[in-house]
Parts: sequence; C-alpha cells; structure tokens
Amino acid sequence: MSKKFIGVALLAALAAGPAQAQQASSGVSPFVMNTMFIVFCGVLVMWMTAGFAMLEAGFVREKNVVTQCAKNIGLFAIASTAFVLSGYGLMFPNGNWMLPGIMGYGGSIEIANVVEGRSDFVGRGHAAASDIFFQSMFCVAVASIVSGAVAERVKLASFFIFTAVLTAIIYPIQASWTWGGGFLASELGFRDLAGSTVVHVVGGVAALTGALFVGSREGRFVDGKKLALGNYSLPLATVGTLILWMGWYGFNAGSYLSFSTDGDAANVARIFMNTNLAAAGGVIVAAFVSYLRKFRFDLSYMLNGALGGLVAITAEPLFPAPIWAFAVGMGGGLIVFWANQLLDYFKIDDVVGAIPVHLFCGVWGTIAAGFTNPEASVLGQLSSVLIVIAYVAVTTSLVWIALKETIGLRVTAAKEAYGIDKSEFVQDY
Amino acid sequence: MSKKFIGVALLAALAAGPAQAQQASSGVSPFVMNTMFIVFCGVLVMWMTAGFAMLEAGFVREKNVVTQCAKNIGLFAIASTAFVLSGYGLMFPNGNWMLPGIMGYGGSIEIANVVEGRSDFVGRGHAAASDIFFQSMFCVAVASIVSGAVAERVKLASFFIFTAVLTAIIYPIQASWTWGGGFLASELGFRDLAGSTVVHVVGGVAALTGALFVGSREGRFVDGKKLALGNYSLPLATVGTLILWMGWYGFNAGSYLSFSTDGDAANVARIFMNTNLAAAGGVIVAAFVSYLRKFRFDLSYMLNGALGGLVAITAEPLFPAPIWAFAVGMGGGLIVFWANQLLDYFKIDDVVGAIPVHLFCGVWGTIAAGFTNPEASVLGQLSSVLIVIAYVAVTTSLVWIALKETIGLRVTAAKEAYGIDKSEFVQDY
Amino acid sequence: MSKKFIGVALLAALAAGPAQAQQASSGVSPFVMNTMFIVFCGVLVMWMTAGFAMLEAGFVREKNVVTQCAKNIGLFAIASTAFVLSGYGLMFPNGNWMLPGIMGYGGSIEIANVVEGRSDFVGRGHAAASDIFFQSMFCVAVASIVSGAVAERVKLASFFIFTAVLTAIIYPIQASWTWGGGFLASELGFRDLAGSTVVHVVGGVAALTGALFVGSREGRFVDGKKLALGNYSLPLATVGTLILWMGWYGFNAGSYLSFSTDGDAANVARIFMNTNLAAAGGVIVAAFVSYLRKFRFDLSYMLNGALGGLVAITAEPLFPAPIWAFAVGMGGGLIVFWANQLLDYFKIDDVVGAIPVHLFCGVWGTIAAGFTNPEASVLGQLSSVLIVIAYVAVTTSLVWIALKETIGLRVTAAKEAYGIDKSEFVQDY
Repeated sequence: MSKKFIGVALLAALAAGPAQAQQASSGVSPFVMNTMFIVFCGVLVMWMTAGFAMLEAGFVREKNVVTQCAKNIGLFAIASTAFVLSGYGLMFPNGNWMLPGIMGYGGSIEIANVVEGRSDFVGRGHAAASDIFFQSMFCVAVASIVSGAVAERVKLASFFIFTAVLTAIIYPIQASWTWGGGFLASELGFRDLAGSTVVHVVGGVAALTGALFVGSREGRFVDGKKLALGNYSLPLATVGTLILWMGWYGFNAGSYLSFSTDGDAANVARIFMNTNLAAAGGVIVAAFVSYLRKFRFDLSYMLNGALGGLVAITAEPLFPAPIWAFAVGMGGGLIVFWANQLLDYFKIDDVVGAIPVHLFCGVWGTIAAGFTNPEASVLGQLSSVLIVIAYVAVTTSLVWIALKETIGLRVTAAKEAYGIDKSEFVQDY
Repeated sequence: MSKKFIGVALLAALAAGPAQAQQASSGVSPFVMNTMFIVFCGVLVMWMTAGFAMLEAGFVREKNVVTQCAKNIGLFAIASTAFVLSGYGLMFPNGNWMLPGIMGYGGSIEIANVVEGRSDFVGRGHAAASDIFFQSMFCVAVASIVSGAVAERVKLASFFIFTAVLTAIIYPIQASWTWGGGFLASELGFRDLAGSTVVHVVGGVAALTGALFVGSREGRFVDGKKLALGNYSLPLATVGTLILWMGWYGFNAGSYLSFSTDGDAANVARIFMNTNLAAAGGVIVAAFVSYLRKFRFDLSYMLNGALGGLVAITAEPLFPAPIWAFAVGMGGGLIVFWANQLLDYFKIDDVVGAIPVHLFCGVWGTIAAGFTNPEASVLGQLSSVLIVIAYVAVTTSLVWIALKETIGLRVTAAKEAYGIDKSEFVQDY
Repeated sequence: MSKKFIGVALLAALAAGPAQAQQASSGVSPFVMNTMFIVFCGVLVMWMTAGFAMLEAGFVREKNVVTQCAKNIGLFAIASTAFVLSGYGLMFPNGNWMLPGIMGYGGSIEIANVVEGRSDFVGRGHAAASDIFFQSMFCVAVASIVSGAVAERVKLASFFIFTAVLTAIIYPIQASWTWGGGFLASELGFRDLAGSTVVHVVGGVAALTGALFVGSREGRFVDGKKLALGNYSLPLATVGTLILWMGWYGFNAGSYLSFSTDGDAANVARIFMNTNLAAAGGVIVAAFVSYLRKFRFDLSYMLNGALGGLVAITAEPLFPAPIWAFAVGMGGGLIVFWANQLLDYFKIDDVVGAIPVHLFCGVWGTIAAGFTNPEASVLGQLSSVLIVIAYVAVTTSLVWIALKETIGLRVTAAKEAYGIDKSEFVQDY
C-alpha cells in the first residue's frame, strides 16, 4: 500500500468519524438496552409482592386476612427502604471489605451518584438506579417468604422489626458472599444465577426459625395429628401463584443483567422458556402425585408445586436444556410433598407452605445447578448452601429471641382465637 | 467515475469497516430488540392465563370454584409442556411437509438448538427460545377458552387429557396451515395476524363440541327456559377481564414478531391503540344494548363485550384506521349478544360465554379482516375459517367421544349437585 | 487542506453512506427504543384501571360491588374512546391555538397519520400511535379517580355522561396548558412531569365536586359523627393498591417519553427508584401514625398512604435525591391523614378516600416540585395548581348541575338502601 493510500485511508477514517458520532446520537447503546431490560424485570419482581400477598391472604383464615394484607404492604415498604438505605452497600462492597470476602461496605460510587447527583452512570453496563431498584425488589421477596410461614399468630410490630433487620443487614451480607464478589463465589466457586440459595433458602430458613420461635397456631396439631384449619380463598391463592409465576420470568431473566448482544438475547429468551417449563413440571408432578394417592387433584399442592419448580430452577435457569429444566421443576414438585410431610412430623406449622417451597426446593435447585451448570461443582454448591443456612439460622434466631424477650413475638391466645383482624384492626373508611 | 476514484471509494468502505465493527460491539441489533419485544409480549400473553382463571372462577358457582382454579393451573402446565414437546414442531414444519401444506414436522433446527445447545440463534430475526416461549403461551390460551365452557360438570382428568391432545396435536397442525406456511396461507391467501381463527375460533369450536358432549349443567334449562345459576364473584370476573384486556396488547402486538425498524415501531404502536379501541367498542355496545333493553347496565355482558371486541380485532389489528378498529369491536359486542341467544335457543350451556366470544366473534373478526386487510379477500377468509371449523369440530369430537366411552366425561349427578370442590377436593394446608 | 483532499473527504463521506444505511438496517434507532418504552409503560398505566377497579370494589359494600365494577369497566371504554376522538387534539394543539395558550385544537398531523395512513411517524421521537395510546390511559386514570368518591349512590348513566365530558373536553383542555405548550408551562413556568396536578388534582377536584353534588350516603354521617359502613373485601383493595403501585412506575417513568440515550436510561431508572421510595414512605408514615394513635396498624390508611406517596412524587420523580423522594412520599402519607379528618369535619363522603389521596397529595406534590425541581418555582407551582383547581371546580360543577337538573345524579333512597346491584342488575349468565 502506498503512503498516499494510507493517507487516504486515514482521511476516510476521519470522515467516518462524524458518521459514528451521528450513530452515537442516533443509535442505541447496550447501556440503554440493559437498563430498560432491568427496570421492566424489576417491575415483574415487584409484582411478586402482590403474588405473595394474595397467596398468603388466600391461605390464612378469614379472621386474619386483613392483618395478613397489612403485613405484606408493610414489609414491602420496610424492606425496599431498608435495602436502599443500608442493604445495597453491604451487598455490593465493590471491593471494600472489612472482613475480606465476608463483610464489606461499598457501593459508595453508585450510592453517591444516586443520592447526590443526577448523572448516575456506572461502569457495569446499566444505570445504577436500575440496579438498586431491581435488587431492592429481590430483598422484598426474601421478607415476603417469611411472612407466610408465621401468619395468623405473629405480632405485627415484631414482624416489622424483624423485617427491617433481615433486609437491612442479614440478607445483604450473605448476598455479598455470592453476588458481591465474596468468598462463596470466589473461594467455593458457588453459582446461583437468580438466587435459589441467596433469596429462597435465606427466606426459607428465616421462615423456619420464625415458625419455630413463634410456635404453631392453636389447634393446628391435636393429638399428634395436623388439622386443616381452612383458608380464606383458594381463588386468591391461585391468582397469587400466577402472579408469582409471571413475576418469576423477571426474577430469573433479569438476574442475567444484560440484554444487549445477540448472545444475551438468546440466553435470556432461554431463561424465560426454562423458567416456565420448570413451573409446569412442578404442577404436573403435584397433579400426578395427588391423583395417584387419592384420586383427586389437590389445588393447594398444585400451586405449591408450581412454586417449588420455580424455586428449583432459579439457581440455574440458563444452562439446562429445556427437558432438564422441566425435570428440575418436577423434582421441586416432589420435594414439596416430602418436605411437607417432614414438617408435619416435626409439628412445624407453616401456614402457606413456605418452608417446603423456598427452603427445601431452594436447596434442591442449588445442588441441581452443580450438575447443570458446568462452571459449578456439586460440592461447592452443597457447602455454600450449608454455610448460608447456618448463617441465617443463627442470625435470624438471635433476632427472634431478642424480640421474644422484649416486646414479644405472639399475639395473646384470646386475640388468636377471636381473630387478629377484629381484635387489632379498625377500618376507618 | 475513474478507476482511481472507485479504488478510493472501496478503500473508504474498508475504512468504514472497523467503524461498523465498533458499532456491532457497542450498538444493539434488531435481533436483540425483536427478542426483547417478544419475551415481554410473551409475559403479557402468559398473564392471560390468570385472566381466564379469574374470569372463570368468577362465573362458576362457589361450590366449584376450587376445581375451576385447579383446572386452569393444570391446563397451563399441560399445554405449555405439550406444545414444547410436540406442538411447536408440528406448527412450524420449516418446509418439511409429510402432507404438503397440511401436516409436517420440523422446527428441527430450532428444537435442536434449544434442546442441545446454548447458541440458539435462528435466522428469522429473533431468538428461537423467545419464539417457543411466546407461541407456547398462545397454545395455553386455546386450552383456557375450552375450560370455561365445560365448567362445573366436566371430569378434571378427562379435561386434562383433552387438553394434552388439543395442544400437542390438534391446535398446532391447523396453526401450521396459516402461520407455518401451510395451505391456508399459501393457497387461499388467508391472513390472520394474531389468531381470530387460529386461536379463538379453534378454542371456541373445541368449547362448543365440549359443551355438546358433556351436556348442560343440571338445572340450567328448565321447561325450555335458561335459568341463571348464579356465580361466585363478579369482581373476580372483572379483574379477569381486565387481565385479559392487558394481556391482549401483547397477544396482538407480539404477533407482529418484529420491533426493530421505525416502521415496525409505528405499526406495533398502532396495534396497541387499535386493540384498545376495539375492546372499548365492545364494552360501549354492550352497555348501550343492555341499557336500551332493560334500563340497566349488565356487567357480565359488558365484560364479554370487551372480550368480543378483542377477539374480533385479533385477525387484523394493524391495517384498520382506529375508527374502523372501534367499529370491528362494536361488531364483536353485538355478536356476543346474538350468539348468546342462539346458544340459549339450542340449549347449549356455556358457563362463561366462551363460545359467543371466541367462536362467533372470531369468525366475525376473520371476515372483517377480509375488508380491512388489503392483502386478504373475504372469500379466502371465509373459506379458511370454515375449513378450520370443520377440522376442529371433527377432531375434538373424536377426542371427546373417546373420553366419554372410556373414563367418562362428566362427574356423577351427586357430585355435581353437592359441588365438585367438596366431593373431590381436600385442602391439606 | 487542498481541494483534492476535500474532494476525497466528500467521497469518503459518500462511501460512509452505505455503511450508515447498513447500520440503519442492522441497528436500532432512538425512535424504535422510545416507542417500545412508551407502549410498555402504556400497558402499565392501563393496568392501573384494574387497580382502581379492585381498590374501589374492595372499599364499597357488598350490595354495590357489581355496580362499581360495571362503572370501572364502562368508564375505561368511554374515557379511552372519548380521548382519542376529541381529547388528544385538544390536549396537543401543536401551536394551533384559538385562545392563545388556553384552548386550541391540533394534533392534526398525528391524527391524520393515525386515522388515514399507515406510516404514522412523528417528529417528536416516538410513534404517534404510541403517544395516543399512552396519553389515553392517563385520561382513563382521571375518570377512575372520580369513580371511587361518588360510589354507592351515583346513577350509573349520569356518571358515564360525566365521564365522557370530563375526558373529551375538561381534562384535555387543562392538560394542554401544561403539556401541550399552553400558558401554565410557558407563562408561569409550571413543571409537572407526570401529573400530580394535571391528572391527580384534576381527578381529585372532580371527585370533590361529585361528592358534594351527589351528597353523602345514607347513614354515613349520623349525629355529626362519621360511621364506618363496612366494605366488601380489603384483600381486593390491597391487590388494587399493589396494582396501582406497579402501574405507577409506568405512569411516572413513561412520562419522560424518551429512553434512547445513556442519560435517558439513567434518568428513567432513577424515576423507578424514586417512585418506589415515595410509596414506601407513605406506607411507613401511615403505619407509624396509626400505631402511635391506637396501637394498631390500619390497613386502609396504609393503602391510601402508599397512594398518597405516589401521587406526591408524581410531579417531580426525577430531580429529588432518593432520600427526598422518600420524604415527599412521607409528606403524602401525613396529608392523607389530615385531609381525611378535614373531609369528616365538612361531612363530605368519599367512599375510597380519593380526595385526600389525589387532590390533597397532588397539591402537596406540585408544591414540593417547586423545591426539588430547579426549573420550577414554588410560586409558579402554587398559582398553576390554583388555576387548575378553579377551572375544574367550575366546569365539573356545571356538568354535575346539568345532570342533576335533567336525568338526576342519584339513585332512589330505596335502591340505595336495598343495594344498587340487586335493584338494577341482573346477571344473565
């Protein structure tokens, strides 16, 4: 190539400059695309709050349904505020560890942008505020899981205080171990794309300690047998489940955090498909099991089968081929059944079945990811989930005990018998 | 142009190359945009499942509402699984026809990508998995339509088997005739953008044959007169209708399958607007008609008016000017009224009004598209919808008969009288 | 630079042409991105219709719940049609003022494109039809606000006529003052990003004049005291509130109307986060206030606290730092409480609390924007909202009076006592 040609080429490149500049002002960047993806997925995750609210309102008895609604609206407000004020910085230390890999505080760059300035760009490929919004909705989900298990007897004020501690401190610290670059991800190779462990096992363990410390409802276990106490409205529980199913697409897909290349698009689409198949697998197993046992279809079990399948696929909704996603969901549906019987055996009263769905299926999904995700190992998955279980069991127990010893955890027996709604609530409108 | 100038031009084009490459890594492709559009529309279509569930739970009697919810959750799981396993390949033969234009099996490229690999790109402009996800939600809608018409007396197990056959085989084969490049599209010039025929007439005919074979509810027609049997909750039916209305934007707009050029954007936006106006037209007609007849507004009719308008605009939501979209919807609202009376005349018991809405308004919308879509002819539309009606009537009848002769289609009279919920269900929680 | 070099540069620019053309066919334009953003936000705003419907169905008494659902479905159809036919042109005069800055009629370019042609592009950066769809959903919200305040005694036909006038004429004219380039924006520097005044104060004033002209329900105020008349279902009111909360993201963020640059993305994400924090602030204040007063959590107040916070942040969800967004929402929560007592003092019967939430919190949010938005002044905000209040108070009063003097505003006392559902409605299905 002659010098002259090179000169022309340079000139051409210069000439192409404005074209690019024009493109920059007339094209759309990955940052824009990722941010749009994340805010809309965040809306879907927020919507799960309504799903939990309706599921729980449907499963409690009529005499406590207003209280349950107040609990869900209240925890949403508390959790999403506590997480922004405190949790987000704990969850993403951005390398500022006090105890390396275990506890840090950071997010200072993002927080500063969000709190102080308008130009809240961050380097990770999407707007800081979209990340805070999206992650805060995840944090709300953790608190929502607990709410169902301790329904119908917990003191509302105590539950709200528990929620604040859980979402401001307990949840985000362990989330930093996996999603904030902490020791589970870096040392144990833990992989949990959308949070079978980070969200659901954590919520499930907090639900279990809650159910243990607050005790079972009066009349739930009589002469060693579990009694069905009835419920307010299975149609509301059904729409609650469908809301959760819908929101879960955003929960799992949004966790991919990126939607700007063709590969992203293919992967995220696959997450949508796999998430749906896992839920379907859970329902189908539940339908079969209940039909084979008693020649009838048990709606409550089918609903929790869907949720069990969804929790199970959450750790790894991308890698498995659809048929395996379906199988992972079927596993969830089975585990809901066994875990339910286990809780009965131990006389643990979980009003909506949150512990089987979120704790047990969460563990199953976490381990399954060890098989389906080539980057993960079964051992790493198992040890990570055990560490998280131990941490959450200890920390939440401490909070429940502190509440029990001070303002108390449980409404009076008279209020429980009469119904919390009428004994504590007045509708002013 | 001198040779030298051509050389410079080529060089300049080469120089522009890297700029493009840079753009490829920093810009967003149509593939990405289309895929995002389709997955979010797919979520909206999935949400219609909840709409059908609440609509139907609202319209059945309290004694059967739990069964109805189980039916809707179950069919969702079954249909979305059956469609992925079998239906998708039948629906899009990709040119691999066994009977040319009538029945093929293909989709092998997409299925292989989805089942075996992670790099599921396809050439048609969006991710394969997004297409499978979106189309499977359409298939669920077909089954949901049937569910309402046969409510309160069908055996759940039989309905689930029917659903599996409908969604694995019957629906996708006829869908291939129109959307898979089959003979309706290629020979008769049939145009049905979002499925007035392909989805709603198909569901409506299956609902009609179901209602005929399963028979009317005890006490529905007494001394030649239809009795109102009451319903569980019109507020639930209302929110179900609004959910369907919301989901329908995704149903119609998503069927455009593309959102990457300015023209796409303008067209899709127009589909949103037209879809809404058709629903509004259906409601307004229903309000007028019921007010003129009895000086009152009939909520059930207004809800079905909205749905009738939506079904009617589904065949062609893009071409008509907004005022004509409104008119097509008004037509739907009128037809719901007439068709309802026709069903009463023939003593066909359709619990939620699925047949007037989906079958009759579907036919109307299909024919109307012959007028509004310049690429379609009224004759082509009419003959196509008649062929589909005949095919679905025959095939679904065979399935209903097979079920009736084996495990039976209907619960016992005692169960029907007592309510299926209490005689078949136990809530274990 | 020599002439020759300039020639080469021009040539290179020409050569870059095809590259750009290629980009145009393989890249995505801001027009596409903005349009997608707006249609999906429009779906969220549409969804608020279901939120209002469930909130109101939940708060009325069982004997009027069917009527309330019919009212909400009907107003949706009427408002979205009236706005397209008449309102949109009044709202965006595009410079064609009859009374400069006060009343014009335009939008002729957009309307022509939409009604007549298929190539409905407009210059403002997104598809005309997406704008019409989105704005018509805002108009529906205004009518929905009124519906709750006059529930349980207004004549349905009169309410529908009022809705048509409100949405075809009254609302769009004042909206043109702010969003159509009219005198409030241009003369007083009024800033109201998503409509604390333009939507919520307008709806709130119409609700207030409605409540005054239609009068309070029989038995609401006895011996100078307000009686709680009970309500149909607080779980429905809860899910209604969560639906509104969800839809509000689209309401506030969509009002930004642009999502194509990195700055847009950062700003819109911030609106999502701020909107959520304001709602949370409203709930938390409501929980505190009700607990401090009576040692219990009042669900109705918590729900309206959320809505009050949302209304308050609507005028300016972008500029305030998150902590201030939270504070603005808390202000909303407090104002709901005070305004509620004020209404009781004046014996105004507002069934769902629409006036405290939309009128009072709307005024608060409008004034707060004078502090948080550097482009706005408190004086400009205050004088603008007062002008809008005066205009809506006068015009809506005239309509209510005209209706009262002709077909009447209120059902008979017998119907009210017996319940409008049974005395006016028959369910035919």
